[in-house]
Amino acid sequence: MNDRFLRACRRESVDRTPVWFMRQAGRYMPEYRALREKHTLLQLCRTPELAVEVTLQPIRALGVDAAILFSDLLLPLAPMGIPFDFVAGEGPQIETPLRSKADVDALRRFEPRQELATTLEAIRLLRRELQVPLIGFAGAPFTLASYAIEGGHSSNFAKTKGMMYGDPATWHRLAAQLADTVGEYLRAQVEAGAQALQVFDSWIGALDEADYREFVFPHVRAIFDGLVDLGVPLIHFGTGTGHLLAVQREAGGTVIGVDWRTPLDVGWSRAGEGVAVQGNLDPTLLFAPRERLLSRVDAVLAKAGGRDGHVFNLGHGILPHTPVENVKAVVEHVHATTAR
Amino acid sequence: MNDRFLRACRRESVDRTPVWFMRQAGRYMPEYRALREKHTLLQLCRTPELAVEVTLQPIRALGVDAAILFSDLLLPLAPMGIPFDFVAGEGPQIETPLRSKADVDALRRFEPRQELATTLEAIRLLRRELQVPLIGFAGAPFTLASYAIEGGHSSNFAKTKGMMYGDPATWHRLAAQLADTVGEYLRAQVEAGAQALQVFDSWIGALDEADYREFVFPHVRAIFDGLVDLGVPLIHFGTGTGHLLAVQREAGGTVIGVDWRTPLDVGWSRAGEGVAVQGNLDPTLLFAPRERLLSRVDAVLAKAGGRDGHVFNLGHGILPHTPVENVKAVVEHVHATTAR
Repeated sequence: MNDRFLRACRRESVDRTPVWFMRQAGRYMPEYRALREKHTLLQLCRTPELAVEVTLQPIRALGVDAAILFSDLLLPLAPMGIPFDFVAGEGPQIETPLRSKADVDALRRFEPRQELATTLEAIRLLRRELQVPLIGFAGAPFTLASYAIEGGHSSNFAKTKGMMYGDPATWHRLAAQLADTVGEYLRAQVEAGAQALQVFDSWIGALDEADYREFVFPHVRAIFDGLVDLGVPLIHFGTGTGHLLAVQREAGGTVIGVDWRTPLDVGWSRAGEGVAVQGNLDPTLLFAPRERLLSRVDAVLAKAGGRDGHVFNLGHGILPHTPVENVKAVVEHVHATTAR
Repeated sequence: MNDRFLRACRRESVDRTPVWFMRQAGRYMPEYRALREKHTLLQLCRTPELAVEVTLQPIRALGVDAAILFSDLLLPLAPMGIPFDFVAGEGPQIETPLRSKADVDALRRFEPRQELATTLEAIRLLRRELQVPLIGFAGAPFTLASYAIEGGHSSNFAKTKGMMYGDPATWHRLAAQLADTVGEYLRAQVEAGAQALQVFDSWIGALDEADYREFVFPHVRAIFDGLVDLGVPLIHFGTGTGHLLAVQREAGGTVIGVDWRTPLDVGWSRAGEGVAVQGNLDPTLLFAPRERLLSRVDAVLAKAGGRDGHVFNLGHGILPHTPVENVKAVVEHVHATTAR
C-alpha cells in the first residue's frame, strides 16, 4: 500500500512528495473518451462498475499516489428535488433554478446511504482494487447553492448573492440543509471506505471575507466539525482564494488547497503552519513545452521547500485536451526530484 | 467644472470623495435599453452622436463625478484584421480566432486617428457638453489578446496561455503590437479631449506573478511609459488581482484599481502609498436591500480612511438588471458622508 499521500496529509515524513490531480479522470484520456462514447456522464457516475473503471484509469496510466472517486459535485442535488443534466459543451443545467423561499421550503431531505448508494458501492468496490488511498468528495454549500440558484455556471453569482443579501434567512436555511446533506454524504463515503475527503468550494473566491464569514463560514465549519471524529484527512479546496485562506482554515480542514495565483509558500503561511497544503501548478502549464512545464513544477516544489505536509496537485482540475504524456511526466518528475 | 475626480486621482484634497462606476452606461438603464431597441451595440459605439448620448445618460441620471466614454474594449481589433460581433446573450464572438504565428503575422497596423476617428469625434463632442471630467479607455494586451485567441469569453484562458508557453516569440509580437496600437489610441483620446485614461486588464487575475512578469509586464509598462508625458491620470484596472497589485503598480499607472475581493486598505498598501486607488464595492451589492448596501459602502469608505487619493467605484462593472435607484443612492451616500 502506497501511503505517502495520507502521510503528507498528516504532515508526516514521506519518501517522495505525493502527487495526484483534480479531474485526473476525464475527457483528456482516450480510455475515458471511449467509455463516454457509450455512456453519458451521469451513467458513468451512477453505475458503480463504470465509476470504478473511470476512477482506475488514471491510476493505471499515470502512477499517481491517490485515487479520487469518479463522481460529480451535483449528484446530491437531484434527490433534494433539484434535477439537472449536462448539456454538451455547456456544462450542468438545473431544470428549475431555486429562486425563492418557497423553492427552498420545498426541498427534500434524504438519506445519502440510500439515495446515493451507487456512489458508496463504487467506493466499496474500489477499495478492493486500489493500492493507493481513495479520496471521497462533495461540493460545499456555496458552490452547490450557486449551481442550484444560477441554473448552471455563472461568471458573477449575482442571483446567489442576491438571495444572500435579499433573504438571508432563506439563504442560511438552504446552506444549512446543503451542509447537513453533504456532511452526511461525506461520512457515508468514509464508512464505505474513503480514506480522505475533499470538500470542493470551487467558486468561493467570488466572495470577500465579510460575505464569507457571514454567509458561508458557519455552514462549512459545521461540515468539518461533523467529520473530525472520523480521523481521516479533510482537504478544503477553493480557487481564487488568496484573500480567504486564513478564514477557510479557521472553518476547517487538515489540508488547505491553494490555487496557482497564490505562491505556495505565501498560501501556506496564510493558512497557518499547523496545516498541510495541496497545490498548486496552473493547469494550463500542462499544455506547455516540457522544459517550461517541469521548471514550473520545480518552482512549486521549491516553494514547498521540502517541508512535511505538501501534496502536489494542480491549482484546479485538469483541462480538456491536456496531453496525457505531460501529466505523466509531472508525476515522474515530482517523484524523481523529491526522493528523500 | 466638477474636478474632484481629477483631484483625487492626483491625491489632492477633495471636498467629497468622487464616485463613478464602471459600465455606468448600459442595459440596466431604461434610457439605454430604449436606444438599444433601435441600434446595435456596435452602432452605438461607432456613431459619435449616439456614443455621446449614451455616455451622458448616467451623468444626467446619477450625479457621478466623471464620465467614461461609451465604447467597447474590442473596437481596435477590427482594424487590426480581427473582425468580431456581439451575439445576444453570449457576448463578443471573434470571427476567426488567432491561433498561429501566421495569424499574428497577418495582422494590420493602423492609425487610430483615422480608423477609430468616430470614437475621437465622440470625445470632442462630449467635452463641449460635460461638466465632469471625461475618462478615455482601452483594453490591455493580455485582455485583448485573450478575446482574439479564445474567440470570446473564456473561463481558463487555456489557448491564450498555450500561445504564451508554446510560442513565446509570437505571443510577445502580438502583445507588443497590441501595446503599440492601444498606446497610440489612448494618446489620440487625450489629444481629442479625454482628461484621464483607464487601461482595462480585466482578466489578468488568471495569471500568477511569474507569468505576469514574463508575458505581460513589458507590454503594459510600454503603454504606461508612453503616456506619462501627457500628464493625465492613468488608471490601471484588473479583477482578481490581489496577488498582482504590486507588480501592476510597477508596470504603471497613477491610480490602481482594486476589486472587492481585496480589502481596500490591503490593496492600497500592496500597491504602495504613493499611488491613488479606485474601488471597490462588489457590484452584486447593488442588488441588496438599501441598508446592507449602504453599510457596505460605509465599510469601503472606512478602509479608505479619509485619505486623499481614493476614487469610489465598484470592483468591476455594473451588472445587467441592477436597480438604477440603488446606483443613485450610492452616489448620494458617498457624497453625503464624505463631505470634508
